[in-house]
Amino acid sequence: MALAIQHADVGRYTAHPNPRVGCVLVQGDQCVGAGGHRAAGEPHAERMALAAAGSQAAGATAYVTLEPCSHFGRTPPCVDGLIEAGVSRVVYACEDPNPRTRGRARGRLEQAGIGVTTGVLAEAARRLNPGFFQRFDAGRPWVRLKLAMSLDGRTAMASGESQWITGEAARLDVHRMRAEASAIATGVETVLADNPRLTARGIDTDRQPTRVVFDSRYRTPADAAVCAGDAPVLLLGAAGAHAAAAYPEHVECLAVPGEGEQVDLGHALQMLAGRDVHELFVECGATLAGALVAANLVDELVIYMAPRLLGNGARGLVELPGLEHLAQTPMLEIVDVRKLGADWRMIARPVMPAQAHPKACSPV
Amino acid sequence: MALAIQHADVGRYTAHPNPRVGCVLVQGDQCVGAGGHRAAGEPHAERMALAAAGSQAAGATAYVTLEPCSHFGRTPPCVDGLIEAGVSRVVYACEDPNPRTRGRARGRLEQAGIGVTTGVLAEAARRLNPGFFQRFDAGRPWVRLKLAMSLDGRTAMASGESQWITGEAARLDVHRMRAEASAIATGVETVLADNPRLTARGIDTDRQPTRVVFDSRYRTPADAAVCAGDAPVLLLGAAGAHAAAAYPEHVECLAVPGEGEQVDLGHALQMLAGRDVHELFVECGATLAGALVAANLVDELVIYMAPRLLGNGARGLVELPGLEHLAQTPMLEIVDVRKLGADWRMIARPVMPAQAHPKACSPV
Repeated sequence: MALAIQHADVGRYTAHPNPRVGCVLVQGDQCVGAGGHRAAGEPHAERMALAAAGSQAAGATAYVTLEPCSHFGRTPPCVDGLIEAGVSRVVYACEDPNPRTRGRARGRLEQAGIGVTTGVLAEAARRLNPGFFQRFDAGRPWVRLKLAMSLDGRTAMASGESQWITGEAARLDVHRMRAEASAIATGVETVLADNPRLTARGIDTDRQPTRVVFDSRYRTPADAAVCAGDAPVLLLGAAGAHAAAAYPEHVECLAVPGEGEQVDLGHALQMLAGRDVHELFVECGATLAGALVAANLVDELVIYMAPRLLGNGARGLVELPGLEHLAQTPMLEIVDVRKLGADWRMIARPVMPAQAHPKACSPV
Repeated sequence: MALAIQHADVGRYTAHPNPRVGCVLVQGDQCVGAGGHRAAGEPHAERMALAAAGSQAAGATAYVTLEPCSHFGRTPPCVDGLIEAGVSRVVYACEDPNPRTRGRARGRLEQAGIGVTTGVLAEAARRLNPGFFQRFDAGRPWVRLKLAMSLDGRTAMASGESQWITGEAARLDVHRMRAEASAIATGVETVLADNPRLTARGIDTDRQPTRVVFDSRYRTPADAAVCAGDAPVLLLGAAGAHAAAAYPEHVECLAVPGEGEQVDLGHALQMLAGRDVHELFVECGATLAGALVAANLVDELVIYMAPRLLGNGARGLVELPGLEHLAQTPMLEIVDVRKLGADWRMIARPVMPAQAHPKACSPV
């Protein structure tokens, strides 16, 4: 199963909107076939492994990181493929979270006389697709909030000057994170201030993530860098807002229910999940970052730390208005720390719900 | 030599004002004696190792982490001891930085027909006593600035509430750092706000460091916790300032030249070095911390990071007024990162001089 998890990596950047899945076929103590699902429309991991094993698939045990599909999608059901190939046993790490198909593989396989075992390395296999599971479990994407700061928690000088806070290795890591995501999101203030492209660059991938702007009043200029290129763009505006700009065809204005001129962030994430955004990588300013954190909508903070001190006059990392006592402040667990050139990256996850923010809305 | 460095650890908390030194005596491939210098007035490392080896010292090679002393201090010269014991060769890691004795051991030993080798693991041996070397090389102590912060670089809520930002393991580590230091320093604002004791607690040591308060106008109350106990207290005041309080005998008011009502920090550190303060552990507020950093007087930042977010409304880590551009901000190198309970500790060292601060003075 550990090997199957490794094979899932072939779809790291490209499997979206499908889950990353790996499969290994074993006869005795020998691997007779292995494969991973690279991209939607291409064969699933099981089909890749069966093709690699050929006639050696008969009687083999199949290890799959996710419950094999039992429905017709863009490709025929993998359960049928496994049955036809004559495997003797199927071990899968975890059930498909999609309620339409969840748990259906077991019955089909057992009916065909194939032994089924589940739950092997389930947690590690789930981590291949945190957003795919969360989308079905909680109705919203897995949200990674990227923050880049100095050692003293500052993002930019008071003037806004922030170029080159982190180095080359950290920037490449950000592009890797972008490339993994279903979509990359930011706030309109960042679009107006920094004009980011929100594309994954320097990464070997043929898929560009969807770009999302929290933009209550559709202030994103039609010629903003975020609107360039082919990858879809979603501008999340307030229900009553109207776009003045004439956007290119791949830019869609999406009305999100909210309060007044603001966009309800939870609602926005639900809508993104409904559009197959499983993993959302957010790169934004302190206001939107704080609003997401305060609303408990962040699953992982990805913090790039440059070994500099900018001082208290510089701009801070997250706006968390209304917090007066330590007990109210969001508590995290640092789950990963690593060196990237001269910089360090920390990944932190919430461990206790922060006090709910009165208004979980985007900045106007 | 690596073993000798380990033996120096016996004096980690107690050797002050002497350097931490270890010594190993080797015959062939066998260690026949080893020892470290525990505390001033007690035998030096060489004497400990010679006593352990007894008659086996004759013909042995002595590995010492520092040039053996050749002068009468509180104990007779170790060079004489090594000669009398009949060692055949002496290997020491680095020369004594004290200009009174530097380099004298070699001649004495060679005159006695003993081979001398130096420079073995010199850098590692110097790190045993960063302040002892710096005091003689640069005329000021090795300054460690301790900072405790949230993940977003905040030290306390706006109200000042800061208790329990970091956990038990981090607090014990702070006490270990305190116990290692010659002196623990803070600013008078911290004394007035938090009333710290500045003692090393929960550590197996019979020495308490000197306590130092940057206190231009001698505002430290005579009944402040920092004045309690037996360990000496130095209040660093401005040249013209007068202490209104009647302090206990172990509290000394020391006039430091400066500008107006302020204390010149560089001068203060020079004066501390003159009083055998080799390693200074500073725990203070953002203003004094920033002044020390801006004046390039900090050798190591010891940053304890609690996995919390306090938000931009909370108090910041270092005041660095006058910085407008990134290029002016202090650049550091993170040399050590480790987990302490749920917290993380980072040690950072300056790699480029920060732009000199116009006034390297203490806050009044």
